[in-house]
Parts: sequence; structure tokens; C-alpha cells
Amino acid sequence: MPTSTVKTFRAERERLNEIVRKYSGQAIKRFISLDGQVYRPGALPAQTKELLGLVASLVLRCDDCIKYHIIRCHEEGVSSAELDEALAVGLVVGGSIVIPHLRRALAAWDELQRS
Amino acid sequence: MPTSTVKTFRAERERLNEIVRKYSGQAIKRFISLDGQVYRPGALPAQTKELLGLVASLVLRCDDCIKYHIIRCHEEGVSSAELDEALAVGLVVGGSIVIPHLRRALAAWDELQRS
Amino acid sequence: MPTSTVKTFRAERERLNEIVRKYSGQAIKRFISLDGQVYRPGALPAQTKELLGLVASLVLRCDDCIKYHIIRCHEEGVSSAELDEALAVGLVVGGSIVIPHLRRALAAWDELQRS
Amino acid sequence: MPTSTVKTFRAERERLNEIVRKYSGQAIKRFISLDGQVYRPGALPAQTKELLGLVASLVLRCDDCIKYHIIRCHEEGVSSAELDEALAVGLVVGGSIVIPHLRRALAAWDELQRS
Amino acid sequence: MPTSTVKTFRAERERLNEIVRKYSGQAIKRFISLDGQVYRPGALPAQTKELLGLVASLVLRCDDCIKYHIIRCHEEGVSSAELDEALAVGLVVGGSIVIPHLRRALAAWDELQRS
Amino acid sequence: MPTSTVKTFRAERERLNEIVRKYSGQAIKRFISLDGQVYRPGALPAQTKELLGLVASLVLRCDDCIKYHIIRCHEEGVSSAELDEALAVGLVVGGSIVIPHLRRALAAWDELQRS
Repeated sequence: MPTSTVKTFRAERERLNEIVRKYSGQAIKRFISLDGQVYRPGALPAQTKELLGLVASLVLRCDDCIKYHIIRCHEEGVSSAELDEALAVGLVVGGSIVIPHLRRALAAWDELQRS
Repeated sequence: MPTSTVKTFRAERERLNEIVRKYSGQAIKRFISLDGQVYRPGALPAQTKELLGLVASLVLRCDDCIKYHIIRCHEEGVSSAELDEALAVGLVVGGSIVIPHLRRALAAWDELQRS
Repeated sequence: MPTSTVKTFRAERERLNEIVRKYSGQAIKRFISLDGQVYRPGALPAQTKELLGLVASLVLRCDDCIKYHIIRCHEEGVSSAELDEALAVGLVVGGSIVIPHLRRALAAWDELQRS
Repeated sequence: MPTSTVKTFRAERERLNEIVRKYSGQAIKRFISLDGQVYRPGALPAQTKELLGLVASLVLRCDDCIKYHIIRCHEEGVSSAELDEALAVGLVVGGSIVIPHLRRALAAWDELQRS
Repeated sequence: MPTSTVKTFRAERERLNEIVRKYSGQAIKRFISLDGQVYRPGALPAQTKELLGLVASLVLRCDDCIKYHIIRCHEEGVSSAELDEALAVGLVVGGSIVIPHLRRALAAWDELQRS
Repeated sequence: MPTSTVKTFRAERERLNEIVRKYSGQAIKRFISLDGQVYRPGALPAQTKELLGLVASLVLRCDDCIKYHIIRCHEEGVSSAELDEALAVGLVVGGSIVIPHLRRALAAWDELQRS
């Protein structure tokens, strides 16, 4: 994705997160904080954690989550060969039902490579 | 959602339901009738049933179903605090994969509050 | 379930939770704490929250989770008529694929009623 | 499965269905009746409908449902070659996550062939 | 769908498949080849295989996959009565959560009938 | 798991795979071969691929698949700290519905550590 596409994706996310914060009590806020925590590097590097998040999102077929992790994988310096192998695991585990999401994942990756 | 948004949502639903009726035999028609029946107040009030439908739709991640139950919860007088707690149950049961749907659920709720 | 069955179910859970605590870091521990928090009574009563957890577990088809919430619903004084209506919502939302879980849910409920 | 295994499976189903009938109101009863209706032969023969139910159960990964449709396919005279091709569609659509269910489906089929 | 709609759907698919081929290694390519193979007529006719793919896609709720199989069913000469009965199986197995996808499936079918 | 438990798990798998081979045509055989291929080390090491398979199996909630990847992670020398962080990603993505599977995953890991 060109920088502007990534910016638009993030701006929309932020707009909606603002609404989430407006209505959510302590439990939802704690969950969202925890969601950020598990991707921080530790015993496993950030790259591996983003690939784990990506493959989990792929087999559960959530386009927004896939796009988010595709951007994060790109930021963490994942290579196209590494991405291909991670997506292959997700495709074989999840089956042909994930193909439409795989197409959109790679279309986003392609934009990021060319930006 | 402003009244017009709710109206548009319902008009599109009705247009598609017309097509469903055109092609569906007795079994699909009976299913749709049953789908209406289970939300009618009985031992449990309509509010609780709509919250059950909402949380089930959230963990199964169906945006159309979520939006429908968000509108119905609003019509039945569910408060923002009650909605937050029901969504928190759905978020914790279903995990971060439901967050994009939670965002859209609360964006719809926000529109309804301000209309 | 007779008291002894509930006790056995809880003892096995506790044995496994001990292993979870042995290997889990802060993130998993925080998640489990949050999982307890969302069912505490607040704007919604505990009964409603347990029914929400039950229906979410039913449509996601997790027998252990269903059994846990069936026991909790019983403890909170949910009636058989209320349970039937909540399960009917879950069955219609989730389809015939949930019927085997519905059978086991009601078998557990039946044991609790007779204990 | 030898006749006795099929009998045991059906007896346990019937025992649990008895409990379902004891606690279920009109909505659950209507759903179960509808569940029987959709497999009756009509524009599509019973064989095809059982294969549809089998593949749907396979990709949704419900062992009880799979076993039920495996028995019904056998009763309707589905051949091993037809079964293999239907399961192949389910495996490719649903991915390697269905393999454990595929193994149990074919183990049941194998028993039925040898009985 | 009018011929032009089918053409647009296929052109977009082909555009994305081009990107998939650009980044995918041998494993993803082999999967996609296998995905084509399982729908070829054999012991079961192509019609039945497309109905199996359609119902699997319906219960797993993938709109792109549903649309693809709706078009293929039309090409293979499936009748509206046969389609209704296959969709009824999918609706009863998968529950009301599939209704939004059923609506879009029948809207696509309606377009194909009128083109 | 003690060596004998792993041996029993593998023996049962092999017994069932024998039945799968007996009934499956070329498509299922090709799928199973592809399933083996995607975990071979390439741009990503075997450890990472096993963790990807484990987290995908966890969020899709397949106990057999989880146990298989837990054993493979142990064979590839994954540490308890790495496992904890991978499971934490799976738990947060997949929600509390995966907790029963997380318990069984860690019980298997605990056996392997002590064998």
C-alpha cells in the first residue's frame, strides 16, 4: 500500500477506536491493552509474533485483522519468501475458504512492496 | 444511526427478503418464521433475548446480524452500560478477532444515540 | 449433575489450571483474570451474563464452556423455562450443528435438576 | 460399524433426545422437525442431500453429525468412490484442520463396509 | 447476474490471482491446482460437486466462494428447485447466521436467471 | 508426554491413516502430501512453522492438531517461554473459548517436559 493508503487505514481505525473508548468500560479497555501486549518482542521476536497473528487472522478469515498484520509484518522487515511460507501454512490449515482472504492479503502486500 | 440510515438498512433487507421469498420453498420459509419466533418475549424479556442474539452474532462475526440486533436493542431500551457489558462478554469469549466487528457495532450504536 | 459430578468437573479444571499457571506468563494470567471479571454483576445481573456466556459457548460449540455456564446458570437460579428460551436462540442462530452440544447441555441441566 | 455399533449410537442419541424433549419448548421442537424435513427427497435425491449434510458437517467439524450422515449415506447406497469425492471437496474447502474428522469419518465408513 | 457482472467478477478474480501467482511458492500453487481438481466430474457429477462446494461455502459464510459456486451451478444447469433444497440444508445446518449470505446468494441467482 | 504416550498417539494416527489411504483417491492423497510439505524448513525455520501450525490449530480449536504440533514443537526444541508467548497470541486472538484447548495443550507440554 502507498503510505497514503496505510494512513487512511490507520485514520479510520483511530476514528472507530475513539468511539470504542467512548462506550467501553474497564473490561473492554483491559482487553485492548492486552491485545497490544502479546505482540511485543520477548522470547519470540516481533517478526514471529506478527506472523503468528497473521496466520491466526487468516484461518479465522478476518480481513481487517489480516491487513493490520500485513502492514506490521512489512514494518518488521518480513521478506516476501517468509510471508509466502507463513501464508502457505495458513492456507493448508484453513482450506480453500481462505483463498479470497489470501488474495486480498497479497494485494495489500504487493502495494506495500511497490510503495 | 439517523432514522434514514435505519430506514435504508431495512429497505435493503426487505428488497433481498423479497428475492428470498421468490426462490425459497417451505423449509426456508419455516426457518425464517422460527427465527422471528425465538426473540419474542416469554420467560425472558425481549431485551435479554436481543442481547443474546447480539452476543451470538458478535462471536460468530456477522456484521449484518450485529447491526440488526444493535437496532433492536436500541428499540427495546437497552442502556449503553448494559450494551458495554454484553459486548465485553462477547469480546472476551470471542477474542481480538471480533474487535473489527465491535468497532462497527459501537459506531452503529453511537449513531443511534445521537439520532 | 449430582454434587459429586460438579465436584469432579471442578477438580479436573483446577488440576489443569494449575498446569496453566505453571507455564503461563503475565499475558495469559491477565486474560484469565479478565475472563472472570466480565461475568460479575454490574449493569446486567449475573443471570443474564451467564446466559450470554452460555449462548456464546453454544454457538461456538465448546462443550467444556457450555457445561461450566450450565452449572453457573443453575447456581444463579436460572429457571428451566428461561434456559429453554436462551438455548432456542442459540440453536436458531447456530443451526443444527449445535444440536449435539444442546443435547449434552440439557443432559447436564437434567442432572443438576435432579441432584 | 457393526450393526451393534450403529444401534448403540442410535440408542444414546435417543436417550439424549428424550431429555431434549423434556426441557424444550415449541421453538426447539419446531427446529428439530425442520431438521428432519430438509433431508427428505424432493428435487434432489436423498443421496445428494445426505452428502450435502456430510460435507457441511465435515467443514464445520462436528463428529456426531459426521457419523450420523456417514450412516445415512451408507443406508442410501452411496458408494465408496462417491464418498471419497465428496470428502475430498470437504477437505479442500475446510483444510487440514478437518483431517482428524476425516479419519474418524472413514473409520466409521470402514466399519460399515465390513459389517 | 448479467453477463457483464459475471465478467467483472471473473476479471477481478483474475487480477488478484495474478498477484497470488507473483508471490506464491510451490505449496500455494499446488493447493490452487488441487482446488480445481476436486470439482471435476468423476463418480459424482459436476452438478453435485458444485452444490457440495456451495453448501460448504454457505455454512462457512464466505460470500466470494458462494458467488463463485452460484455461477458454476448455473453453468452446470442446476434448477431453482434443486438450488432451494441445497440452500435449505445449508441454512438448517448453519443457522440464522447464514441468512445474510443466503440473501446475497439468491440475489446473485436471481440476476443469473434474468440474464 | 512420556515416550509411550507419544508412541500411542502416533500409533493411533497411523492406524487411522491406513484407513484413509484405503478409501482416498488422488485428491485426498495430494492434500495430505501438501500438508507435510508446508512445515518443512525453508525461508522460515521448522520451529516457526510448527508454532504457526500450533497457533492456527489453537484458534480453530482442534485438540488432535494441537497435540500433534505440541509434540513437534518439543522435538524442534521450542522453549517453554517461546511456547507461552505463542499460546498467548492464540488465546488473545481466539478468546476464552480456546481456554479448554489451552489447558490440554499445556498438560501435554507438561508431560513432554517431564519425560
